[in-house]
Amino acid sequence: MRLSEYFLPLLRDDPKEAEIVSHRYMLRAGLIRQASAGIYSWLPMGFRVLKKIEAIVREEQNRAGAIELLMPTIQSAELWRESGRYDDYGKEMLRIEDRSGREMLYGPTNEELITEIFRAGVNSYRDLPRNLYHIQWKFRDEIRPRFGVMRGREFLMKDGYSFDLDVESAKHSYNQMFVSYLRTFDRMGLKAIPMAADTGPIGGDLSHEFIILADTGESEVFCHQDLIDMDAPGADVDYGSDLQPEIDRWTNHYAATDELHDPAKFDELVPREKQVSARGIEVGHIFFFGTKYTEAMNCLVQGPDGKQIPLQCGSYGIGVSRLVGGIIEASHDENGIIWPEPVAPFRIGLLNLKVGDEKTDEACGALYQQLTAAGVEVLYDDRNERAGGKFATMDLIGLPWQIIVGPKGIKSGEVEVKNRASGDRESLSMDAVLNKFTH
Amino acid sequence: MRLSEYFLPLLRDDPKEAEIVSHRYMLRAGLIRQASAGIYSWLPMGFRVLKKIEAIVREEQNRAGAIELLMPTIQSAELWRESGRYDDYGKEMLRIEDRSGREMLYGPTNEELITEIFRAGVNSYRDLPRNLYHIQWKFRDEIRPRFGVMRGREFLMKDGYSFDLDVESAKHSYNQMFVSYLRTFDRMGLKAIPMAADTGPIGGDLSHEFIILADTGESEVFCHQDLIDMDAPGADVDYGSDLQPEIDRWTNHYAATDELHDPAKFDELVPREKQVSARGIEVGHIFFFGTKYTEAMNCLVQGPDGKQIPLQCGSYGIGVSRLVGGIIEASHDENGIIWPEPVAPFRIGLLNLKVGDEKTDEACGALYQQLTAAGVEVLYDDRNERAGGKFATMDLIGLPWQIIVGPKGIKSGEVEVKNRASGDRESLSMDAVLNKFTH
Repeated sequence: MRLSEYFLPLLRDDPKEAEIVSHRYMLRAGLIRQASAGIYSWLPMGFRVLKKIEAIVREEQNRAGAIELLMPTIQSAELWRESGRYDDYGKEMLRIEDRSGREMLYGPTNEELITEIFRAGVNSYRDLPRNLYHIQWKFRDEIRPRFGVMRGREFLMKDGYSFDLDVESAKHSYNQMFVSYLRTFDRMGLKAIPMAADTGPIGGDLSHEFIILADTGESEVFCHQDLIDMDAPGADVDYGSDLQPEIDRWTNHYAATDELHDPAKFDELVPREKQVSARGIEVGHIFFFGTKYTEAMNCLVQGPDGKQIPLQCGSYGIGVSRLVGGIIEASHDENGIIWPEPVAPFRIGLLNLKVGDEKTDEACGALYQQLTAAGVEVLYDDRNERAGGKFATMDLIGLPWQIIVGPKGIKSGEVEVKNRASGDRESLSMDAVLNKFTH
Repeated sequence: MRLSEYFLPLLRDDPKEAEIVSHRYMLRAGLIRQASAGIYSWLPMGFRVLKKIEAIVREEQNRAGAIELLMPTIQSAELWRESGRYDDYGKEMLRIEDRSGREMLYGPTNEELITEIFRAGVNSYRDLPRNLYHIQWKFRDEIRPRFGVMRGREFLMKDGYSFDLDVESAKHSYNQMFVSYLRTFDRMGLKAIPMAADTGPIGGDLSHEFIILADTGESEVFCHQDLIDMDAPGADVDYGSDLQPEIDRWTNHYAATDELHDPAKFDELVPREKQVSARGIEVGHIFFFGTKYTEAMNCLVQGPDGKQIPLQCGSYGIGVSRLVGGIIEASHDENGIIWPEPVAPFRIGLLNLKVGDEKTDEACGALYQQLTAAGVEVLYDDRNERAGGKFATMDLIGLPWQIIVGPKGIKSGEVEVKNRASGDRESLSMDAVLNKFTH
């Protein structure tokens, strides 16, 4: 993409409403624009990141055997009365009356709707287990939306729901998502730690939050150093096998959020030199809640013995839009964002330091054309601007690699390649640059 | 995908609420399920079709130089007061009050919001032209939603907006979308005819609808036979070139919807043997409306002479979810859907006629494994059901190809391949089948 033809409205100054670094950088780097309190438009650059994160979530859900569908944003109040949550949910639920006076709502989560779909479509134990998920916009009418996309009102979430015949099988479904979540966050360049959690309004008795570590995180977390050093399961993990040993590997160590932290236990279980206290951000949450919704909503199947059995269920959420902010909190410096490669909006920023200089234009044009043709995503800064401004912009938007092309280098047949994360620079010939990024 | 592990809730009988064939088949084939009046969940099979259509729309938008972003579903009433449309829009607009008493709405279209984004982000003529689009859920509170996804309340739409400095440049942007739309519908296996149209509540003085022909279409259309025989522009079309000759090629022929049809003119302009009267479905609509919103909302840029100029704009819509129904209306028979290959949820249905028979299972397993490994999308009916039921299901869900494997054929080393559209069948060796679909 040529920057001269792109839509990247940058802000020169820190927006005063932005209290945290991700919010500040997302506004300044032209990733988002606020539409109303807690509601954002995703500008082209931010949209690309959102889509990359969504794609990783989708791939890892599919790999784990979950099946994608899509439920609507607007739901009927009637359904929520069946589960008893319509009155419970409080003012966070955006309630709507349609033109015919029917009570509707903008879905904050989908346990009711998926249970209705399942009860209508599945009658026999032979059609179990199933894990259905969707990636859809949700709305929670926060009284004080803030921190940009980290606590917005309209947000994109992956929410999945497992249906099993018995508790043992349901725990396997839970474990599949546990493993899948470790892989999902790992692939985004994040270190995510699973922590036992309260179940809150979803209900149930088994739950884990997935917390990514970031110095600027919203809450304090405590855990064993070994958890931080542990590798996520590989792509060859067999989701059909018993995953409990892998789960145990992660849950045998102490890990707790501020709310559930027990200092005495921490000291007892974790040697002093392995005690980590850090800041974290919740990016995923999984729940096993058994028959809470299936009993209330009469979602039964016929078992092998002919009896009607209420299904055992879990639900599994990933904050897709929240992750964009979370990744920035975990990966930035004083000059701007540092995108991990798998979620970067473009892999390379190509800087033309002297637009109008024939040889520089020619070299940039050739690099842009050849890299793009090889499938490498390049943002080419071909604007007629000062070099200093271009450097600052590239650091701010945080693409993993910069290729810097100026008349001096071109004379000796070289361009400079800078790694945004490390700051390392090297001078390379044109051929070497192409080779580096296309092989 | 193995059908035994999929989520495909089929209906045996015609649902009585479904008045048209696409609605009937979408419910029966497990593509959608109604959540509330005019609001649908997209079950896994329907979701796959929706995503294929979305991907084609996206590719053709990007090819034409449009840039994707994503605006939220919930908008503030304030913005719509700026353009003067808040009061005009009537009861089709779903109006919402949030917990703080702010007036909000579920966006039925996005002229206001994109104009606000543009006025905040662009100040100079040097940053023009731009065409920004998004693919997002919309809501129109129809008084009588019906015909399934063809006239639903919550629907997925691609809406794009062009911003230009002057009328001439704006007409070029309009022409780019005109050509892009012809390509988009052509790639889905549809015959789309552009027809001059009224501009309705969007406003403006230049507008075309894109109507696909279907015997069961919602409205009557009249056109010249040559339009139907004309080929859409190729993938090598140069969007930077003057597209007017291509537009003229399409607009020089008579074509009109029922509302604008002029029988006398039709007789005058079209020789009797070239007169076509057919039924059609609107799937796209493009508008040029000049400065209607930019003047009302003060969206100005500095021109080359330093003067502030209100931008010249157009908007361009494609009914993404509506297209799923539209394609079925255009392509079905008495047994079910006939998916055009580019939008089919799977390319092949693999029927095992005798689950449990070792050799049949083995042959099916091998075909499934090898086709899937080659990137061919296969739905494998491995359920322990009667052959008759399997044939009926496959015809109903309408995958382009069926591979039918039974013990008899296996004995002579052959399987049967059926083309859903033509009904043609051939017996092929296992190798020949693999070769047919992987080369």
